[in-house]
Amino acid sequence: MLKNIALLGSTGSIGTQTLDVVAGFPKDFRITYLTGHTNTTLLLEQVRRFRPRGVVVFSDAAVKEMKKNAPPGTEVLLGEQGLLDIVQRQDVDIVVSSLVGFAGLRPTIAAITAKKKIALANKETLVVAGEIIMPLVDKHHVDLLPVDSEHSAIFQCLAGELPNKVDKLILTASGGPFRTKPMAELQQVTLEQALKHPNWSMGNKITIDSATLMNKGLEVIEAHWLFGVPPERIEVVVHPQSIIHSMVEFVDGSVKAQLGIPDMKIPIQYALTYPSRSPSRFPRVHFPSLGEMTFFEPDRERFPCLQLAFDAIKEGGTMPAVMNAANEVAVAQFLQQKIGFLDIPRMVRSAMEQHSNLANPSLEEIVTTDSETRALLQSQKVS
Amino acid sequence: MLKNIALLGSTGSIGTQTLDVVAGFPKDFRITYLTGHTNTTLLLEQVRRFRPRGVVVFSDAAVKEMKKNAPPGTEVLLGEQGLLDIVQRQDVDIVVSSLVGFAGLRPTIAAITAKKKIALANKETLVVAGEIIMPLVDKHHVDLLPVDSEHSAIFQCLAGELPNKVDKLILTASGGPFRTKPMAELQQVTLEQALKHPNWSMGNKITIDSATLMNKGLEVIEAHWLFGVPPERIEVVVHPQSIIHSMVEFVDGSVKAQLGIPDMKIPIQYALTYPSRSPSRFPRVHFPSLGEMTFFEPDRERFPCLQLAFDAIKEGGTMPAVMNAANEVAVAQFLQQKIGFLDIPRMVRSAMEQHSNLANPSLEEIVTTDSETRALLQSQKVS
Repeated sequence: MLKNIALLGSTGSIGTQTLDVVAGFPKDFRITYLTGHTNTTLLLEQVRRFRPRGVVVFSDAAVKEMKKNAPPGTEVLLGEQGLLDIVQRQDVDIVVSSLVGFAGLRPTIAAITAKKKIALANKETLVVAGEIIMPLVDKHHVDLLPVDSEHSAIFQCLAGELPNKVDKLILTASGGPFRTKPMAELQQVTLEQALKHPNWSMGNKITIDSATLMNKGLEVIEAHWLFGVPPERIEVVVHPQSIIHSMVEFVDGSVKAQLGIPDMKIPIQYALTYPSRSPSRFPRVHFPSLGEMTFFEPDRERFPCLQLAFDAIKEGGTMPAVMNAANEVAVAQFLQQKIGFLDIPRMVRSAMEQHSNLANPSLEEIVTTDSETRALLQSQKVS
Repeated sequence: MLKNIALLGSTGSIGTQTLDVVAGFPKDFRITYLTGHTNTTLLLEQVRRFRPRGVVVFSDAAVKEMKKNAPPGTEVLLGEQGLLDIVQRQDVDIVVSSLVGFAGLRPTIAAITAKKKIALANKETLVVAGEIIMPLVDKHHVDLLPVDSEHSAIFQCLAGELPNKVDKLILTASGGPFRTKPMAELQQVTLEQALKHPNWSMGNKITIDSATLMNKGLEVIEAHWLFGVPPERIEVVVHPQSIIHSMVEFVDGSVKAQLGIPDMKIPIQYALTYPSRSPSRFPRVHFPSLGEMTFFEPDRERFPCLQLAFDAIKEGGTMPAVMNAANEVAVAQFLQQKIGFLDIPRMVRSAMEQHSNLANPSLEEIVTTDSETRALLQSQKVS
């Protein structure tokens, strides 16, 4: 049966790869909505190729351009309200959320409430509001399918297993471009160096998060909420080859892992076809050619963001939202070359230290915390 | 609910480890029958400790000794007829078959027909008669649970997956003690060297089979029957660390693996507790301490038994039974230091070449083929 997809954030890395996957299964999937934040040129190309019923853009200029150039009959919607509108429509079966950062929160909640199947590539949603999201997922009986390679790996390893048989989740981390760089050189690394991920081709924000290991920290929190495992039973292991995407250790000592070449199209396709699988032509792992797979403890001194994430989820409440907002601001400033690499964890730590934590926050309190943290940091000078 | 277990071959390596596992779950499992072939002293110890209702032995002397020394009321049965009798009894829920070689065939069939859950550590049963066994398993709707670490790994990876989504089974092999030994030195290896397996502690027959890679060949055939995957889609990869116990590659390119320290108690316990898992205190893998995991193509020139097994299953019919019987005779002669290491594949190849294959054999035809092959080889001198 043909499934209709609303693809949120179609011009980003996950968005374009989702369209590559969807293009391979014209009888299984149809794109009914596309949304793009800034790259209107690419969005227009996608609209011409996939002919969605509607498209969401984020400026009046983009609305104008889209109305002028999109195929006749294409509905053009504006901003977050547009996102909230489309994810609830009848002609949407699956919502793929590949928005970046905090922006993914409200549309995901709207999609859950509308009982859509959700393929979630936006980890920040669960990081800041997992405590609110997961009960909603249960209440509305929706499938919340992870698109992150690590969480897809764990999800695949848990298939067919009974509940409460997990001893430990083991998230693998490539270690990023600075895995072996001494502490003394880290402050001086350039933006260009930080953007060169050894294994994965991804968007800028997540690539910097990978270099600081904040990405792994966000994933720990995401895994905690998705799989209901406390943070003290979530382990991070550096595995530079990124062939094992993550693992689950069960109560009997048996470990299951999901492996593959580092290609996001595999977890994207799995989320779309779940609980089935469809044939793909993605390149395969040829084990004898691999050479070796190695494993190391992560260095929490050189990469303090990982520890900050563990601290934030142990605190709970609004603390993860503060950590996430501070990290988004810091990464944006690093991308603008306004701050150095080690200033990212410094800014995050400082924001967390200044925050008076609030337990069991409402969605509005989380949104307020997010805004306040951003405002605070933007008003501060980094030394 | 308490499950009653008939443990066939309790004094062997799998047998004793099964008792170790069972001893940890006195509320879940009870041993109702034990059987042992030659080590009556150990069998008697086990009978005293686990107090089964009955015990099967294989000589009149052993019957006498058991009747004299076993706790009063213990039923003592004799030979294959004893095995066939106990596996069908009401007070047996699970039959663990850890008999060695061809001897496992008839008791397994009797257990299937009696609709018992079967934990199968005897791979020769499926190797020689998979074509007969698997339709019986389907017909009687029994669970045939593999205890071999490789097949347990694949079985665990297939949990929760839909049928017909497998592209490839990837069996890992340690490579045995002679993995890096040059061809020219192989004929001269001693029995002692061949019995030193680098990773696994197992019985003599399987340890020699591991050294020749015939064990992996038998496993390919076993996997073919258990999982319904044709031999051309079963791959063998040498993985000297034996941490990954085997893998499944699905149609979408995703690979799942099961890992653990090399300890047969994990797959034994899984077969007993399936589809659940129970806590264990078995040592765990600590990935950062592993160093590395490596992978190589198996060398089919130095280890011709692997290729012979692929040839046998492609031929089908009675050929796998010939291969298995020839291998059992050859390994027995090598264990008695009557022949050299490379004579094992030579004897197997010679027997296969002399055999006129018979398609779709009956059970009796398989039994006859087995006997004839043994008789033929025992009458021949190895040059």
